[in-house]
Amino acid sequence: MAEAEVGDDVKGEDPTVNDLQKTAAEMFGMEAALFVPSGTMGNLIAVMAHCRDAPLAGVHATTVTTRPDGSFDLKQLESKIRHGYPDPHYPRSRLICVENTHNIQGGRVLPLHFLQDVRALADQHGLALHMDGARVMNAAVAQGVPVAAILQHVHTASVCLSKGLGAPVGSVLAGPQDFISRAVRCRKALGGGMRQAGIIAAAGKLSLQEMVGRLEEDHHNVKTFAQALIDCQPPLFAVDMAAVETNILRFRVEDPTLSPEEFCARMGQVGEGEEAALGQGIQVLMYPHVENSIRAVWHLGISPEDTQLAIQKMQFVASQHLKGKVETQ
Amino acid sequence: MAEAEVGDDVKGEDPTVNDLQKTAAEMFGMEAALFVPSGTMGNLIAVMAHCRDAPLAGVHATTVTTRPDGSFDLKQLESKIRHGYPDPHYPRSRLICVENTHNIQGGRVLPLHFLQDVRALADQHGLALHMDGARVMNAAVAQGVPVAAILQHVHTASVCLSKGLGAPVGSVLAGPQDFISRAVRCRKALGGGMRQAGIIAAAGKLSLQEMVGRLEEDHHNVKTFAQALIDCQPPLFAVDMAAVETNILRFRVEDPTLSPEEFCARMGQVGEGEEAALGQGIQVLMYPHVENSIRAVWHLGISPEDTQLAIQKMQFVASQHLKGKVETQ
Amino acid sequence: MAEAEVGDDVKGEDPTVNDLQKTAAEMFGMEAALFVPSGTMGNLIAVMAHCRDAPLAGVHATTVTTRPDGSFDLKQLESKIRHGYPDPHYPRSRLICVENTHNIQGGRVLPLHFLQDVRALADQHGLALHMDGARVMNAAVAQGVPVAAILQHVHTASVCLSKGLGAPVGSVLAGPQDFISRAVRCRKALGGGMRQAGIIAAAGKLSLQEMVGRLEEDHHNVKTFAQALIDCQPPLFAVDMAAVETNILRFRVEDPTLSPEEFCARMGQVGEGEEAALGQGIQVLMYPHVENSIRAVWHLGISPEDTQLAIQKMQFVASQHLKGKVETQ
Amino acid sequence: MAEAEVGDDVKGEDPTVNDLQKTAAEMFGMEAALFVPSGTMGNLIAVMAHCRDAPLAGVHATTVTTRPDGSFDLKQLESKIRHGYPDPHYPRSRLICVENTHNIQGGRVLPLHFLQDVRALADQHGLALHMDGARVMNAAVAQGVPVAAILQHVHTASVCLSKGLGAPVGSVLAGPQDFISRAVRCRKALGGGMRQAGIIAAAGKLSLQEMVGRLEEDHHNVKTFAQALIDCQPPLFAVDMAAVETNILRFRVEDPTLSPEEFCARMGQVGEGEEAALGQGIQVLMYPHVENSIRAVWHLGISPEDTQLAIQKMQFVASQHLKGKVETQ
Repeated sequence: MAEAEVGDDVKGEDPTVNDLQKTAAEMFGMEAALFVPSGTMGNLIAVMAHCRDAPLAGVHATTVTTRPDGSFDLKQLESKIRHGYPDPHYPRSRLICVENTHNIQGGRVLPLHFLQDVRALADQHGLALHMDGARVMNAAVAQGVPVAAILQHVHTASVCLSKGLGAPVGSVLAGPQDFISRAVRCRKALGGGMRQAGIIAAAGKLSLQEMVGRLEEDHHNVKTFAQALIDCQPPLFAVDMAAVETNILRFRVEDPTLSPEEFCARMGQVGEGEEAALGQGIQVLMYPHVENSIRAVWHLGISPEDTQLAIQKMQFVASQHLKGKVETQ
Repeated sequence: MAEAEVGDDVKGEDPTVNDLQKTAAEMFGMEAALFVPSGTMGNLIAVMAHCRDAPLAGVHATTVTTRPDGSFDLKQLESKIRHGYPDPHYPRSRLICVENTHNIQGGRVLPLHFLQDVRALADQHGLALHMDGARVMNAAVAQGVPVAAILQHVHTASVCLSKGLGAPVGSVLAGPQDFISRAVRCRKALGGGMRQAGIIAAAGKLSLQEMVGRLEEDHHNVKTFAQALIDCQPPLFAVDMAAVETNILRFRVEDPTLSPEEFCARMGQVGEGEEAALGQGIQVLMYPHVENSIRAVWHLGISPEDTQLAIQKMQFVASQHLKGKVETQ
Repeated sequence: MAEAEVGDDVKGEDPTVNDLQKTAAEMFGMEAALFVPSGTMGNLIAVMAHCRDAPLAGVHATTVTTRPDGSFDLKQLESKIRHGYPDPHYPRSRLICVENTHNIQGGRVLPLHFLQDVRALADQHGLALHMDGARVMNAAVAQGVPVAAILQHVHTASVCLSKGLGAPVGSVLAGPQDFISRAVRCRKALGGGMRQAGIIAAAGKLSLQEMVGRLEEDHHNVKTFAQALIDCQPPLFAVDMAAVETNILRFRVEDPTLSPEEFCARMGQVGEGEEAALGQGIQVLMYPHVENSIRAVWHLGISPEDTQLAIQKMQFVASQHLKGKVETQ
Repeated sequence: MAEAEVGDDVKGEDPTVNDLQKTAAEMFGMEAALFVPSGTMGNLIAVMAHCRDAPLAGVHATTVTTRPDGSFDLKQLESKIRHGYPDPHYPRSRLICVENTHNIQGGRVLPLHFLQDVRALADQHGLALHMDGARVMNAAVAQGVPVAAILQHVHTASVCLSKGLGAPVGSVLAGPQDFISRAVRCRKALGGGMRQAGIIAAAGKLSLQEMVGRLEEDHHNVKTFAQALIDCQPPLFAVDMAAVETNILRFRVEDPTLSPEEFCARMGQVGEGEEAALGQGIQVLMYPHVENSIRAVWHLGISPEDTQLAIQKMQFVASQHLKGKVETQ
């Protein structure tokens, strides 16, 4: 980053940003791409640039029910499409948004045939299809396809360079050239234009070119930890291995006397006797999640060795909990 | 109004509203017209339907300096037009708005060649031209032309049926068919769709067909009153007769000891000795206006006889004021 | 209406509008009320005046699942309330909206204890509660209580003067004085300020004072027609009499060979042999509705005699349909 | 930057960002500060967080006439303040914005007594005062006061870490704690929340602590170049030395046969015979500016030696131009 060649990106003159955008567009199989400071802004700009008419109260979203695999029912989607004319009581639908991998469902990868079907429906109704592709690189690695094979089904996508890809900040928004031209205006209006963004874009390009391959390692680490949860004796955890596809793990503690909050708290602090038992204190950061589950995420900063330490810590917490139960009985 | 045939106008089924809209469109030389509850909503809808992109913060207006005759400098106008591309720092101009007759300048009629020039500039830059024509009927009468001869120079116009034309409420927005189709949606979104609007539209149609001719009488009454101000002895008032074109009068009290507020207050209440002097008490409603002026408006409810009474009252207030000054010296 | 005393309502000087607003506020048990041109604008203003912060993209709505009686599950409602702090990912909830009577569910009256419970939840979370009370007068009549007994449970309400109450246009928005002060600004901003609105307000006041009593007649007519549907021989229609509470009727044709569209079309036109059979041609306007149902609405313009004619027509259409089926077998 | 300690800033857990914000708040004499990706976003967030009501069409700005020194007339400012009540035709003013140093006027420093007067007026009308302080550090250096001595007069300020201070990207928004709490939400809504922003914030902190002192050098370089323009023989340039206060220079070419565009073009390319005359080719980037002027900006990347080279190049371009004129006569 320290050696990045920079210019004024608001004028489109930063060579490193331009280079990153060109790399991303090629990789994504899209006409053009735009560097933005965050995935949230990438998605916000996508919505603004897609939905040109929003005079009174911005854009209104309606939602469909997500299935456990991150997809949704196409009939339900179609039932929510509004054409606006001739009845002026209804809004005009403009844009369908999907997320890949699906965050809340635990990093689930959207099946390619599902994307194909959503796109066919979008085309049929004259709607645009945008992908929040914050983790679409994980999806590509999990499916064993180039990311362009996924993105060919959508009109536009926002892809994060941070998170699993390791850049400190930044996302790339990609799509047709006229969309990106509108997006440049939106980015400026939102205050996302950065002058010497090249310093950051240098890290972003590295993420795209060098870091995708290593996502496989994250996925492997997650599966290793998930298997260790299943193998825990006596059994304490519930994991659906078929749902463990990428770098996010959702699991449950099957013992009502150990809440997700309590389990995460114990994982995060060094307990009594831990250093004696494990040879060192180990702190693992996990969060309680929807529906009483616990969510853990792997990324560049967590090695196979770290994963083994996390397994030791999990086994220690589990055994301490079970010992505590026996003692209080 | 009580006999108006009505239907559901939100469904486009009110025959009286449809009839009014057809009458207005023909009269205005426009493809289509839309009945709305107020001139404010007419103009608001026009801006919304013209400026399709307003994602972040609505539409932003910039102003030019109005000249005493209601027109403005075309060079200044052109200097404020922004094209948005390629520099994303600037907004994209979409719409030029003019007001005819010009309210604050005292009911001034925009010259036809001025409208022609503004339109040429709008065409040159690909902008739409909208007229706030709340009082455009007064302009047509003052210029001795059909209203369509004025409106041919603009893309769209909002025309009030109340005010001088005497309908209780309502305005008509007129323009190309595709603009009116968007405007129907905007009207519904703003809550301006009315179910049995035909009862009100019946009055509106009468306004367009029967009441335009009588505006001449308002203009005549204004000139009569203005002349009486000039003829007042000793001289107390300043009036620019060349600027008295329609139903609005702006004038000044030339005596610093009699403020606009004080003069209006005296015109509005029955003074001591007034009934003895004038044979009756007369109350005239006028308002202090910009730049120390006073503003008076004539409409359907003010007859030539009422105007003569207003002149008597003005002369009485003037003589009382001058008598008071002599006494206090 | 022709004799209404009028003034400039935008300046708050129209005595008839002021009178209507005072009457409405007293009747509704609210501090203040505001006359607006439509129920849509009434609700829109309510949302704008309640939700003071809407900087980026207006107000976003989230919905709960409506139960057949027009109410909804309070637990589901509570699960959708967001407090905004400390997590900036979430919006801040401001307002709960209910509709009474519930339109889509067929004029269902919200139980008073349900309103009480919703209000308690709103208070607990510091939210405002607004009622789209377009037909709340029907609810009051059906429940045999003064309308204020319903509206005491909400902070604000929008009540239609047209529809069942017979005024040509207009609604009243009512609530606390400071809310109405903000609402006056919103109304002006939306173009809903009308100058001589008194002419229309005169009809509105009559609606509030004289027309509420007669809603009972509409409800009676609906029940009469609903019973005739049930009594039809051989049976052709499905009606849930317990759900017939006010002036809206939802029913189904139980014969798959007669679609709602076809049934409504036949009710709306004079059929062959009809004049001979019924002594006259009868046209009845009904619309196909959600979930394959048919919707019919009663109001001031439909008398008990009209209802009897509609029953004759319905029986004629039914018998013609059954005869046609026999012939084609 | 490579050694910055990072965390998740969206959760408020990035120690380097928190450290930068604390440093900035202390330095600015403000309760709290917020790190944002650009000055544009800083100002946009400030407007959003200050102006809580913007239901229909966002926030509307009105402008006052800038004087050559970057200040404006307080009477004109006061004439544009609107209180909203009781007349609903007018908006409610919420916020006064000033820029320091003033960009378009050539880096002019707002006098402290002017800021004091604007603040007094803001307080009198209950308005907030925000400073676009992109270059306020230059103002502080030019006035020889700590930046807090300037910022004490405003409620909030946005200060750029890039530009003269040399950080690659980022700005700091500072103000009272409750304002910053709202600003955090706005930043998230605009997509300006960055996860591991600490890497960038590390550079920002260095800018605040180490780079302010060196702005003096930029100011010195500007004055050196400005003097050289004045000393050019025969005279070709017009410069107002009293207006050269910080790192921005505005000047004019006094010869109508040499346009600003032409002069800038010649400064930016290596001309014929230049390498022979100057010993090397020199490229200087300047832009034509408002009112036929030329604008040049100094920053971290331009040393005293670079400035001497720019002077040589300017003298070469001037002599070539004059020689060309003589030849063509």
